[in-house]
Amino acid sequence: MSFRVTRRAEATWKGTVADGGGRIGLGSGAYEGPFSLRARVEDVQAATNPEELIAAAGAGCFTMSLANLLGEAGHPPEDLRTTASVRLEQQDDRFSITLIDLRTTARVEGITNAEFLELAHRAKATCPVSRALGSVEITLDAKLAGSEALAGS
Amino acid sequence: MSFRVTRRAEATWKGTVADGGGRIGLGSGAYEGPFSLRARVEDVQAATNPEELIAAAGAGCFTMSLANLLGEAGHPPEDLRTTASVRLEQQDDRFSITLIDLRTTARVEGITNAEFLELAHRAKATCPVSRALGSVEITLDAKLAGSEALAGS
Repeated sequence: MSFRVTRRAEATWKGTVADGGGRIGLGSGAYEGPFSLRARVEDVQAATNPEELIAAAGAGCFTMSLANLLGEAGHPPEDLRTTASVRLEQQDDRFSITLIDLRTTARVEGITNAEFLELAHRAKATCPVSRALGSVEITLDAKLAGSEALAGS
Repeated sequence: MSFRVTRRAEATWKGTVADGGGRIGLGSGAYEGPFSLRARVEDVQAATNPEELIAAAGAGCFTMSLANLLGEAGHPPEDLRTTASVRLEQQDDRFSITLIDLRTTARVEGITNAEFLELAHRAKATCPVSRALGSVEITLDAKLAGSEALAGS
């Protein structure tokens, strides 16, 4: 028997792209708020946009996947912290998401730097959001806090 | 000269996947809140998960793109409303995002149903988030409110 779950979100829009706008709401009710071109291409406080939602999905999925791999290896993390940056750029007259950059720092007991890096790269390659984003380059910078002490062990 | 913007989000985690948890925060500050395995695979009120963040990115990007195409065609929308559903399922012992289903209803003056459907399918195929999610099947159900009146016109 296989597990399956469906998640929902809603977006609305009224009017032109330049002058109109809409709202984005998450199915869980965790967030609902305004959405506009300005919020997408300029810096607007407390309004979200598709690119940072992709960044949040990518950071969350990678981090849970790495916690899972660390736990299976006998080293559940004391603390993981991941920032995802998503780049939107104009290419050939259209906008494309061209890069997702993951930067993670970890506090993990009793693991070597080499083993940690292997698991971090495996999480990047295998988590469901990474695989869904099959058209986008994903880079990873992973650091084990205090790893100097364990280097070479 | 080409335009480029980078969006950020952060995720954290402490402990095992089953018993631990973390937080997800958007760079804009629009949302910050808890994140856990239960929130991902069960129904937890007001906690987000990567799949609904993908759904929100997809619904938002598609809806802005359709507003843009309608405006370019001389028919900026009175109202667009899109729900995106993202399916996460277990396949071959791992979780995968296997489907994004977009359902949009539109109030648009003076457009035929055929022209509306052509633009809706173009928005689905070309918006940046659709193209980023190159590994996932995306389906679309698009309805023009009052389209019966214009059918065949």
